[in-house]
Amino acid sequence: MALIVQKYGGTSVGDPDRIKNVARKVKAAVESGDQIIVVVSAMSGETDRLTGLASQMQTRPNSREMDVLLSTGEQVTISLLSMALHDIDCPAKSYTGSQVKILTDDQHTRARIKDIDAQKIQHDLDQGKVVIVAGFQGVNEKGCITTLGRGGSDTTAVALAAALKADECQIYTDVDGVYTTDPRVVPEAKRMEKITFEEMLEMASLGSKVLQIRSVEFAGKYKVPLRVLSSFKEGPGTLITFEESEVEEPIVSGIAFNRDEAKLTVTRVPDTPGIAYKILGPVSEANIEVDMIIQNTGTDGHTDFTFTVHKRDYDKALEILQETAKAMGAESVTGDDKIVKVSIVGVGMRSHAGVASTMFETFSKEGININMISTSEIKISVVIDEKYLELGVRALHTAFGLDAEQAIQE
Amino acid sequence: MALIVQKYGGTSVGDPDRIKNVARKVKAAVESGDQIIVVVSAMSGETDRLTGLASQMQTRPNSREMDVLLSTGEQVTISLLSMALHDIDCPAKSYTGSQVKILTDDQHTRARIKDIDAQKIQHDLDQGKVVIVAGFQGVNEKGCITTLGRGGSDTTAVALAAALKADECQIYTDVDGVYTTDPRVVPEAKRMEKITFEEMLEMASLGSKVLQIRSVEFAGKYKVPLRVLSSFKEGPGTLITFEESEVEEPIVSGIAFNRDEAKLTVTRVPDTPGIAYKILGPVSEANIEVDMIIQNTGTDGHTDFTFTVHKRDYDKALEILQETAKAMGAESVTGDDKIVKVSIVGVGMRSHAGVASTMFETFSKEGININMISTSEIKISVVIDEKYLELGVRALHTAFGLDAEQAIQE
Repeated sequence: MALIVQKYGGTSVGDPDRIKNVARKVKAAVESGDQIIVVVSAMSGETDRLTGLASQMQTRPNSREMDVLLSTGEQVTISLLSMALHDIDCPAKSYTGSQVKILTDDQHTRARIKDIDAQKIQHDLDQGKVVIVAGFQGVNEKGCITTLGRGGSDTTAVALAAALKADECQIYTDVDGVYTTDPRVVPEAKRMEKITFEEMLEMASLGSKVLQIRSVEFAGKYKVPLRVLSSFKEGPGTLITFEESEVEEPIVSGIAFNRDEAKLTVTRVPDTPGIAYKILGPVSEANIEVDMIIQNTGTDGHTDFTFTVHKRDYDKALEILQETAKAMGAESVTGDDKIVKVSIVGVGMRSHAGVASTMFETFSKEGININMISTSEIKISVVIDEKYLELGVRALHTAFGLDAEQAIQE
Repeated sequence: MALIVQKYGGTSVGDPDRIKNVARKVKAAVESGDQIIVVVSAMSGETDRLTGLASQMQTRPNSREMDVLLSTGEQVTISLLSMALHDIDCPAKSYTGSQVKILTDDQHTRARIKDIDAQKIQHDLDQGKVVIVAGFQGVNEKGCITTLGRGGSDTTAVALAAALKADECQIYTDVDGVYTTDPRVVPEAKRMEKITFEEMLEMASLGSKVLQIRSVEFAGKYKVPLRVLSSFKEGPGTLITFEESEVEEPIVSGIAFNRDEAKLTVTRVPDTPGIAYKILGPVSEANIEVDMIIQNTGTDGHTDFTFTVHKRDYDKALEILQETAKAMGAESVTGDDKIVKVSIVGVGMRSHAGVASTMFETFSKEGININMISTSEIKISVVIDEKYLELGVRALHTAFGLDAEQAIQE
């Protein structure tokens, strides 16, 4: 008998029929002999409906009240799923985040989980019940309702799996696993049977939208085996594992890309100590997150400084940067929001030289100019013109042998 | 500085504009120097939407889960109202029933309030905040969400007023007070400035839908002064008072009616001890509530036994009764669901003879046949054919001088 946490997202519980479908999947898992905890999101569309109501009340809705409002979304789903399970004679009990004390800090709309009281849940599981927990929400020390922000339900599922020492945390979504790259861009993309935790972390942070990075980090911290599966299609999905693979790793496991970034460059900054701080300080004070940062060794006492931000922050960052550049005596500020970041990821890179040059060679052959390069131990990211996205990703997919059947990691 | 509990029903918070209207009314009350606790219902239509979803999940939805589901309705409203108040610079804080520990028994979907923890609310009031509490919902000892059943938000408001020793509990609704009778039936009906608690209790139990009887009972138990007002129209409304009036009471204060009943008669039952129990036992076992009960003195060892039930229970009651009648050796069972109960109410009746005969005379003049009669110290109810409803109520309204301006109780 294994203890499994299953998480179903908004699309998987989007209407009454889909909730019934989830109930059947849960019942099947119970009948196979496992103990099941289910975490659900709000029905798709519900969060938008609630946010719309809030924005009619207050221009910038009070964050404490926003959490009171948004948390109703999952509360509706847990009760409906529990009814659907009762209807097919599968005993179940629903809990809000407050009821099972998913204790968080005080950061409304983006709270972090501090602790979970597993007692009630364990008691119900021991009585043979399915326990349904509202994702995305918690409660702070003062008893106020909090929410965990985007992708919060994944985090709830992983946190519950950690707290209850579950054997596996299954994330049900509308895709049937993690792919070597986005199948909408490369039809030859293949589902991976397994991916290492480190690779998944890079894939998530590099723009693969299958799993939210916070939940992957959380899984890594507590060594929770994660599996990504489809709610609509049978199949084993992709296991995110901590095991060292016994078979030989492919050099590159997957290709991620992110269309949401824009780049900014300050040219000919006088090269004095503290440039990065002087340029990025005002940007981060404006609550703008910076992703890639590149500073070249300077020549003739000047250097160019480039970084990327989310597209939605582009205009604001540009404005801030123009002030900064003036104050620093830099030549000019340039920017481009028609870019895309493409990354190759794989633990195999560690022991293989020449991966970077294969990547650059591939781009060169296709005539794709590289704007920025950034590397880590298991990934290489480059920024290119967004019009080359499909061409670049397809070429890399082929170059690293991901098109072929045997390239799937097993 | 007075402490006022204001309760706004589903129609009063039915859309974003109406919620903003409520926020303005609340702010005005705060600016006049009062401390305000606001109790709100779910936005009109929301409870039906949620019930509809539930019925798609399970034929008879699990009652614990039904409460988890329905309680989201008020939770949405409290957060939206709080945002609307923040938007007009009126500090406010919302609480669910669980958060302020509106402790109830375990009867899901029709729980009764046992206790309220006033501490959090008092603390916020002392800090100059408006406290917004979700109506209709509570929490049991085990931490499960409960709901109070129909009219539950009125009960929440009265219970909070009692717990915090409020100076007045104001029930805002879509009518501007309690009328001598339903103005849709008698256009001459007048709003009463005051009505005694006992009269209101009779009016509510006799079918006047302005206030739910449970909240009136609760107000009586804890001596909470209640006022009924309109959310949409300025005005003093109607005060339900415990004071003995100094001016002379009118004999009859109001006329109530109820179209939701049906009557059933068992004819020629052998007149032995325990008839009422034998007839009504199986009916109440089937969870059917009985209202009026009439049993005449028997003649020649037989008697007729008549009672009324809610129209929705009519068919079921008839079926049960046919079995019972057979077993008891009664002659037959007859029934009628085309009836209406009309009642006159007034504390003045106590000291005035002849009120009943005035009522009967009025009906006789109009050719209205009376089927059943039931009386208490301050009310007389009769059952008549439903087609005489308007005629009967109008005739009584005139006969007891309620049409005239001076008939309003002052």
